[in-house]
Parts: sequence; C-alpha cells; structure tokens
Amino acid sequence: MPKNKVSHNVVLRLPRYLRYLEELRVRNVVRISSGELGQLMGITASQIRQDLSCFGGFGQQGYGYNVDMLIKEVSDILGIRHERTAIVIGAGNLGRAIIGKFPFQQYGFRLTGAYDLAENLIGEQIGPVAIRHMNQLATDLQSAPPDIAVLTMSSNSADAIAEQLIAAGVRGLWNFTNVDLTVSNPNVVVENLPFSDSLLTLNYYMTHGTNRDSTDK
Amino acid sequence: MPKNKVSHNVVLRLPRYLRYLEELRVRNVVRISSGELGQLMGITASQIRQDLSCFGGFGQQGYGYNVDMLIKEVSDILGIRHERTAIVIGAGNLGRAIIGKFPFQQYGFRLTGAYDLAENLIGEQIGPVAIRHMNQLATDLQSAPPDIAVLTMSSNSADAIAEQLIAAGVRGLWNFTNVDLTVSNPNVVVENLPFSDSLLTLNYYMTHGTNRDSTDK
Repeated sequence: MPKNKVSHNVVLRLPRYLRYLEELRVRNVVRISSGELGQLMGITASQIRQDLSCFGGFGQQGYGYNVDMLIKEVSDILGIRHERTAIVIGAGNLGRAIIGKFPFQQYGFRLTGAYDLAENLIGEQIGPVAIRHMNQLATDLQSAPPDIAVLTMSSNSADAIAEQLIAAGVRGLWNFTNVDLTVSNPNVVVENLPFSDSLLTLNYYMTHGTNRDSTDK
Repeated sequence: MPKNKVSHNVVLRLPRYLRYLEELRVRNVVRISSGELGQLMGITASQIRQDLSCFGGFGQQGYGYNVDMLIKEVSDILGIRHERTAIVIGAGNLGRAIIGKFPFQQYGFRLTGAYDLAENLIGEQIGPVAIRHMNQLATDLQSAPPDIAVLTMSSNSADAIAEQLIAAGVRGLWNFTNVDLTVSNPNVVVENLPFSDSLLTLNYYMTHGTNRDSTDK
C-alpha cells in the first residue's frame, strides 16, 4: 500500500497516530485538522501531513481528517486486518503480564499458546491459554506454527529458541529479552524491545536537561 | 558533554552501543573497529563514526575503539554515573517483573519503593523493596521524592498519578501504561514505552515484507 519505501521513523509514528485517533473516537470526535492532531501528539502539522502523504494522504483541505476513515487507513497500513496467531515463550511475571493483559485481539492477533519450563506452572490457565511445557513446543510448532512468538524467557536461551522458532516457520519475533536478536533470514522480522534502552534514554534527557525535539519523537 | 544538540535518533542508538560493547567486554575483546562494531549491530561503520563524533569521537585511525574506554564514554554520555533513585507504581505482574528482575543498579538507579492498591500485596518483599499502599505515597514523596517513577499501574489513573508525582518533585517518568503522558513542565522528562507500538511495528514489517533500513534502526 505505501507508494515507496517508508522510512523507519514514519513507521514508528504510525502506532502513535492510531492510539491518539482511537482516543478521539472514544471522545466522539468526528474530524480533526492536522494542526489539532499535531498539538495533541506534540508534533507539527506539517510532519503529520508529510507522514500521511507517504501513503497517499487522506486529508481534505479545509476539512481535515475524518477520524473513522483515518483509523481505518492507518490500521490497514499497519496490517492490522490480517488475523495472526501468537505464542508466548516464558510465563514468568513479564510473560504473565503480557498473556493476561495485553490486548492482542485489538491488534489483529490471537494468542494460541504459552510455554514455560517451570513444572509448577504447567496447566495453569491465564487469559485464553493454558501454560504448556517447553518440551511440547517442538511438536506444537510442527502441527501449527504461529505467525509470531513473544519472547519473555531468560536472555541466555534467546538465540537457541529463536533458531528453533524460525526453523519451524515463525515469521515474527517480538523480543523482550535484553539480547538483540539478529536474524539472517530475510523473511523473518524481529522487533527487539529491551527495557534498558528506554530507561537510558530517559536518563540521557534527565542528565542533559535537553528535551527531545518535538518533531522527532 | 555533547558538543551540540544531539538528535533523538543518535540518543536512541547510544544504549544499543552500550549493550553491544558490554557483550564484547564479557568476551574479553579489548578493541574493535567501527566496521566490526557496525557489522555486529547491523549499522554502517560511517554511521557509528558519525554518531560518536557528536560527542567528540574517541576512535583512533588504524586502531579503532578501545572497548573499555568507549563503555566509559558512552556511560558518561548517558549519565549513568549519577546515582538516581526510583520507585515503581503498580505491583501487578508487570510491576513485579520490573521490581524483581530489572537491573536498576547496572544503570545507576537504586529502587527505593513500590506501591500498589491491592491490600493483599502490601508488605510483600520483592527484591530490595516491600510493597507499600498507595495511600502512603503522598507522605513518602514529601519526605524524599525519588528521581524517577516507573508507572506500571492501570492506564486510567496515569494522568492523576503523574500529576501528583511531578508536583512532589519527581523529574522522570518511565511510563509503561498505554497512555502517552504529555507533561508541560520542561524540567520533567517522560519516556513512554507502550508495548502496542512495538507489536504494530513488527506487524507493519511482516505485512509489507520490507526490512527496515539497517542504517536507521
């Protein structure tokens, strides 16, 4: 759908657009100008127009954006329509938080399994899934590999498990361990989310007393 | 320390440099060229030289970077030296994961408190802290406000709690709720870390089959 290759910075802003637009919809806002949306989000109107123009625009001069339509367009761009399946590896506190609380369905995902090594957790029902033992993973992957795997287990097994998942056909890794996974298979997408990077970014801005550019969030 | 205002994209890469450098140190690597470091990190050598030159460079032509020295420099730039204090608001699964597992000390932070509303959690010891009731927060803030607060409670109280914290002198908010906090006080730094943005970024690249530019991670 994008006309050209879209820069990573624009891609990073799309989910934020969606969150703000959905908040506007909850508040029954029907349309919004790029200026108003920019003010809410702390970015400039021209940045918004430029970002959305990567995908063909959708605003009308003098009217602004229709909130419902823009939600639909941004959702489409982000690929939310396709129903995808997800499993979670690791049912410690972080895994449990994600299994129990994260609204997968809202983002087009269906949670189909969760795995851990701890015997005392096996069989426990959290949200839509019962925790299964890691030694069942290979068999489960063979019968129906999920689209993505969410990695919340300890970092030292991350590489080996990622390899197993990719060999079985998993195409996306959402990685919460603090090891960056680098995958050579061009059909596999990895999203690393190491919490420490975020804390250090906070620390940087607290140390240097400079606020980040509002245009470059 | 930075010579000029450093772009947000460079700041975002600094914690990654640090993680990779620390891994090299563990493996007893003493020096590394920008080319080798770039290959590990999936970015170009010239990107690395350019990023580090924002802070005055540290490499020597023909030698590369001394790993220990570069760790020290990047840590300094990130402000890791300063010992800061942190409290966690919300001791649900996510809060517990962060309190129990996140290596605050490694990043120059000392965890001094954790708060929740659930009566049955009060007094429980997790890692270095015992969970206290939210109704003690105001008093605790008055005697010794922490430098930062980690927000892991439910999103609907995020704005009100953020306001209370800021009024008490907290200068950094590490926000895991899925509401972006926008703070008008220029002395307060907010780092929003909504998990959904990360999943949608993954979804985007899975949908469009384009890998992000390696130069613009």
